Amino acid sequence: MKLIVQKFGGTSVATEENRLKAIEHISKAVQDGYKVVVVVSAMGRSGAPYATDTLLSLVNDHYISAREKDLLMSCGEVISSIIFSNLLKSKSISSEALTGGQAGFLTSDMFTNAKIIDMKVDRLRFLLRQLDVVVVAGFQGQTDTGEITTLGRGGSDTSAAALGAALQAEWIDIFTDVEGVMTADPRIVNDARPLSVLTYQEICNLAYQGAKVIHPRAVEIAMNAKIPLHIRSTMSNDLGTLITSIKKANYGQDIQERPVTGITYVKNVTQIRVQAKKDDYDLHSKVFKSMADKQISVDLINISPRGVIYTVPEEVTETATQTLKELGYEPIVLPGCAKVSAVGAGMAGVPGVASKIVTTLTQAGIQILQSADSHNTIWVLVKQNDMIEAVNTLHRAFELEKQGSVDRIDHTK
Amino acid sequence: MKLIVQKFGGTSVATEENRLKAIEHISKAVQDGYKVVVVVSAMGRSGAPYATDTLLSLVNDHYISAREKDLLMSCGEVISSIIFSNLLKSKSISSEALTGGQAGFLTSDMFTNAKIIDMKVDRLRFLLRQLDVVVVAGFQGQTDTGEITTLGRGGSDTSAAALGAALQAEWIDIFTDVEGVMTADPRIVNDARPLSVLTYQEICNLAYQGAKVIHPRAVEIAMNAKIPLHIRSTMSNDLGTLITSIKKANYGQDIQERPVTGITYVKNVTQIRVQAKKDDYDLHSKVFKSMADKQISVDLINISPRGVIYTVPEEVTETATQTLKELGYEPIVLPGCAKVSAVGAGMAGVPGVASKIVTTLTQAGIQILQSADSHNTIWVLVKQNDMIEAVNTLHRAFELEKQGSVDRIDHTK
Repeated sequence: MKLIVQKFGGTSVATEENRLKAIEHISKAVQDGYKVVVVVSAMGRSGAPYATDTLLSLVNDHYISAREKDLLMSCGEVISSIIFSNLLKSKSISSEALTGGQAGFLTSDMFTNAKIIDMKVDRLRFLLRQLDVVVVAGFQGQTDTGEITTLGRGGSDTSAAALGAALQAEWIDIFTDVEGVMTADPRIVNDARPLSVLTYQEICNLAYQGAKVIHPRAVEIAMNAKIPLHIRSTMSNDLGTLITSIKKANYGQDIQERPVTGITYVKNVTQIRVQAKKDDYDLHSKVFKSMADKQISVDLINISPRGVIYTVPEEVTETATQTLKELGYEPIVLPGCAKVSAVGAGMAGVPGVASKIVTTLTQAGIQILQSADSHNTIWVLVKQNDMIEAVNTLHRAFELEKQGSVDRIDHTK
Repeated sequence: MKLIVQKFGGTSVATEENRLKAIEHISKAVQDGYKVVVVVSAMGRSGAPYATDTLLSLVNDHYISAREKDLLMSCGEVISSIIFSNLLKSKSISSEALTGGQAGFLTSDMFTNAKIIDMKVDRLRFLLRQLDVVVVAGFQGQTDTGEITTLGRGGSDTSAAALGAALQAEWIDIFTDVEGVMTADPRIVNDARPLSVLTYQEICNLAYQGAKVIHPRAVEIAMNAKIPLHIRSTMSNDLGTLITSIKKANYGQDIQERPVTGITYVKNVTQIRVQAKKDDYDLHSKVFKSMADKQISVDLINISPRGVIYTVPEEVTETATQTLKELGYEPIVLPGCAKVSAVGAGMAGVPGVASKIVTTLTQAGIQILQSADSHNTIWVLVKQNDMIEAVNTLHRAFELEKQGSVDRIDHTK
């Protein structure tokens, strides 16, 4: 059975016009001989009657149980799935809508952030033998006792990836309101352009570092099952960005021609510097335990015998500072920072990438407050006022506005 | 465990004001030491975003499967149940919302009109040991393969009755927008008044004959389980109408003092008269088979060797006439009729009730086109123009505007 998964997000299902565009994509796949599993989000953003936020606004968050919250939210996707299925049938495409549970998502009972335990797709396979399309309500599953759960952030992406993996789909289309994964946020970089191919690892890092195009959890599931992903726009016929393995992406000898794939940023970060007192042997464990106790997530940790530097989200600055003072420290606190990241699977083992970043930023008069790196990402912390210039400077330095060699690959093959 | 069931219909859950009134009733029961199973309908009538009709308006009825229709409609009651549960908790009443399936409604897979096969209420009992209230989404159930079903017309009443029976509730409150069961429709009879007690059989007959206060299916379930029902208004503290067995209603020797309990009507009826041809031995079977083949429901059937007289709903007049002509008959067709019924458990074996009806109507100049009777209902067919006068005339003739002896019973005991 030739089979693909197509996921349509909130804006793609929000209006009749967008839904009809979505139906065209599904119809095209059916004409090409594919069985299509369609995964849908709830309809639209805040304000629309069946949007997730609107449903949640019907209740007082203080009193609702996580279990009831999931049950309430699940209605949004169920309603979407039925509207989609109905529209498909009106265009002579045979279809049936299923809830997450009916489609086979067996999850833990960790409400609002349930984990997929197993995919029981026998029924889905059975339906696909008879129908062109099965529409599945995204973002949701069911426990073995019949509780309705939701999968947490990026849930419908995760649904699509899990279905693609369980059904061994040829690929998964993630339809969204952008043309694909961009080299940088086009709102702040004029020259940003869509990338035609990326590795799973690159998209994960871009996503973790601020690009909101797909949830990393979904990418990991697709990566483990070796299913390619397309990130594409509902409103166009372009194939968008292909996400696949390094090998399949055919980087080969060209990989070093593209050490950096994209530049991302995370705003509203506070840098905290704690200096060690005399004989302060357990400084690091004390500091990080106190942060964990307050549920503060820390990042960009630089440890040295003289102390520790790290970052926290700006909104917890006050709590973090107070906590450290209670431990007897006088932290040096610098709010108003931003993390800028250069991501690229090709940078591993390529000398000079970090040096180029430092030199470029310094020459542009941008102060680097801190830095860190992994095999495919380099982070620098800058003042938020410098952020836009830093992103643009790095985008130009790595010539990301130009079509690279790997972008010439025809990824429909 | 002292336990009651309280059902709140569409208008009772439609506005915040009405919901708060409903919460007061639940709160009162909890204060009186009862565990309360609350059954809710979807919120409000057409136009409200989560009303059943509005949900159905999102799709094209021509393409939706019955299975998808049920899944879509079920969201309306689920959303209601969570809003109710949330409101209860905000008033310090512990509560949790369950879908029909989670509450134990195991049904057939006859979508849009599913039958209850079994009530699996272990989980509900378990929750009731820990909580004051469990709110159950009415009108819905689940098959053994996890399909969501709805219970058809009067579904939330049926849900309440089935829960009352399965949990052996002390009684079931059916909250509605009227004060109780009336002696006649107050929109056409000025002197109509609420009845304080009725038998199960009487309310069933009233309901079948046009009174829309509760669905007969719900009454039958309560009757078989011997659970009393109260039909009452959300907006008042009156106990409304008690529905119970003849014995419990304490009619005793007074029963013959109330041969007639209420007068109802059904509008838009067509009378059809078919005359037998020579040697037309199978006239009756031919006629009724042809009506059944066209899915036309027939009523008030009077059979004689010379032919047959019966009624059909006015909207199928044309189809019925055409069908009979194809059989070679020339039916005499009279549209614009109305069925007026006098219902009363006390009329069985009481002579003169039929004669009083005939005499009264004749004296008032109302022509009786046809009549029929069972042990507790007498029907007459009149011209629709005469209907309002016929109902008022009979209401006066049986002195229904006066408080009867059985109405003095204190049914809180």
